[in-house]
Amino acid sequence: MLHKQRLFTPGPTPAPEETLLELAKPIFYHRSAEFRQILAEVEEDLKYVFCTRNPVVPLTSSGTGGMEAALVSCVPPGRKVICLISGRWGERWRNICKAFGFEAVNVTVAYGKAVEPSQLQQALAEHPDAAAVCATLSETATGVGNDIEAFGKLVAPTPALLVVDGISGLGVMECRTDEWHVDLCVTGSQKALMMPPGLAFVSVSDKAVKAMEQNTAVRAFYFDLRKAVAKLKENDTPWTSANTMIRALRVSLKRLRAEGIENVWARHSRLAEAARAGMQAVGLELFAERPASGLTVARVPAGLDGNELLRKLEKQYGLKFAGGQDTLKGKIIRLAHMGYCDQFDVLAALAGLELVLLEMGHPVEPGAAVAAAQRVFARAVKVSQVVAV
Amino acid sequence: MLHKQRLFTPGPTPAPEETLLELAKPIFYHRSAEFRQILAEVEEDLKYVFCTRNPVVPLTSSGTGGMEAALVSCVPPGRKVICLISGRWGERWRNICKAFGFEAVNVTVAYGKAVEPSQLQQALAEHPDAAAVCATLSETATGVGNDIEAFGKLVAPTPALLVVDGISGLGVMECRTDEWHVDLCVTGSQKALMMPPGLAFVSVSDKAVKAMEQNTAVRAFYFDLRKAVAKLKENDTPWTSANTMIRALRVSLKRLRAEGIENVWARHSRLAEAARAGMQAVGLELFAERPASGLTVARVPAGLDGNELLRKLEKQYGLKFAGGQDTLKGKIIRLAHMGYCDQFDVLAALAGLELVLLEMGHPVEPGAAVAAAQRVFARAVKVSQVVAV
Repeated sequence: MLHKQRLFTPGPTPAPEETLLELAKPIFYHRSAEFRQILAEVEEDLKYVFCTRNPVVPLTSSGTGGMEAALVSCVPPGRKVICLISGRWGERWRNICKAFGFEAVNVTVAYGKAVEPSQLQQALAEHPDAAAVCATLSETATGVGNDIEAFGKLVAPTPALLVVDGISGLGVMECRTDEWHVDLCVTGSQKALMMPPGLAFVSVSDKAVKAMEQNTAVRAFYFDLRKAVAKLKENDTPWTSANTMIRALRVSLKRLRAEGIENVWARHSRLAEAARAGMQAVGLELFAERPASGLTVARVPAGLDGNELLRKLEKQYGLKFAGGQDTLKGKIIRLAHMGYCDQFDVLAALAGLELVLLEMGHPVEPGAAVAAAQRVFARAVKVSQVVAV
Repeated sequence: MLHKQRLFTPGPTPAPEETLLELAKPIFYHRSAEFRQILAEVEEDLKYVFCTRNPVVPLTSSGTGGMEAALVSCVPPGRKVICLISGRWGERWRNICKAFGFEAVNVTVAYGKAVEPSQLQQALAEHPDAAAVCATLSETATGVGNDIEAFGKLVAPTPALLVVDGISGLGVMECRTDEWHVDLCVTGSQKALMMPPGLAFVSVSDKAVKAMEQNTAVRAFYFDLRKAVAKLKENDTPWTSANTMIRALRVSLKRLRAEGIENVWARHSRLAEAARAGMQAVGLELFAERPASGLTVARVPAGLDGNELLRKLEKQYGLKFAGGQDTLKGKIIRLAHMGYCDQFDVLAALAGLELVLLEMGHPVEPGAAVAAAQRVFARAVKVSQVVAV
């Protein structure tokens, strides 16, 4: 039977057809009025998505490059950094600190849990000399969303910068960069921004700019945000940017702007709620205690082979989910619904999941997952007045 | 009058239509057998283009990121680096050294000249403790080609690594990475490789691998080549790569392989020779004493406004040349003929140049430039035996 290929990995995610076609347009020069005009437009729309009035620096790199740029530009060598760790991506902050000789203070919770604001409060009290606090908006490894708003309230009155990995969260779930006192918010192109991987973005607050200016011992070149912020004032970049990607990003950003960022957040919330309802309806146990909106993570039922489950979804139905990483390999499945994803995509994913679980001998009432999801979607339908005949 | 847009900037350069269309294909997952297969193929073809048996690491960054990666991964902090500087791109090596606290020993020549091997010989004699020698294959700012083969002979017997910026030269002019003892050769996607900007590549010799292993004080994360080399053994990358670009690169690389790398070098030599002949035929003075094959640089004739010349080429004829940078701004024009460029493209560029020079009052015999170029191309025609009637 014909099955379309459907990508449900938590990055890369699908891109709209008109964005992909934009990537096929002829190559153009990057030091040109044409490019400066495009970058100015993209910058405006990025600020809208980030909910910030501050510059959002584009980098040609993966999201990890953006994380590194944020930290090395603002934190002087040898200084203390509080890392809030709820999974593999929080661990990346710790690893970046190690590579550059920052002293990481690790606040770690078990996989599946979110970091409690009280834990940060305690860490800040114990380490008033911390130069930065690193957090993760959406922990892609476990599907957990962290309470960035609460973190911001705690960090704002201190000298520390709040640095947030928003890679799989920004443009998916609420993240009000300025209002929540996020000094450096990082994202990548291949998630909510509906683009292929290759670009990262970092917003830079006034507090972060001051820290950069005082950071005279900075050891960075390609990722030196001071240069990038200065160049951005002329709608330019210090190094040759992936200019055809930035041109294509403009198309995806127009979509987000047309939908409206609060509607985008609401859409993802609804998709996540439907995915959770669907998975629970076939007896799966959710993994994240405080779930993010961009992906839904469930434990593989006891007795089932998680890798086999993923293989069957892909081979038999063209549905590409992701599994767990490192110690979670084989133990969880991850269904992403972020970016260019609508309610019927989620229904397809749940329908395939039902069929594979059934085939593998897991007790499933056919239609239970899709019906549960559909009930969530139905709540958004505005019923017309019934006209009496 | 209709004029097609023709891009003659020394990066980005045009890409073949089938490569651009590949970029418009649906996005796919990067941690997959599909991607590993693509990367394995790309890796083989990159080795062919680099003339190396060693790994060629793909990075998601501009070429500058590749230069940084080569240096920070292999050179311990505080060590001495000999920078051979023949222009703005040689100066970039010096600036990277400064940013990371390497002690740069600068060997500088005037713009338009190449670094003499004897200068390197002297620098190596004076600084036997140098950890690396940084050179530029094609100095894009001036159109000069440097004698990497001679540099390699001098560096090979020393403990220093030869690190070459091949960004606008590799895949254009002869560069036999292994045979010439280049330890780390860097290039970008947007030149000879006929792709948009966004990827960089670094070849890594055994000598470089040893240096990396001994460099325990390395301060790098995203650009740590040790991680990249290790992951490449599994046809994988440490961070989310720009996987759809790597898929498209495969298409461009197949073209290079089909043409044959020595034929590619010969094509660029011929294009460069024709461009030089054409420019000289209308009285322009060439800027580079030892010209590279990827671009041809001429001085703006006295009395003419160089910026106006470039503007007219673009506005009236759709021909996008590049001007000079920094202190060379307005003083030179740069015509790139690298990557997806054939002899009739060069003819179009020269034809437009003739017309604009004519319009600006520069004495030009119409047809002089194109005829001179055509005489170069005609030499490649194999004339059939004339059959006596």
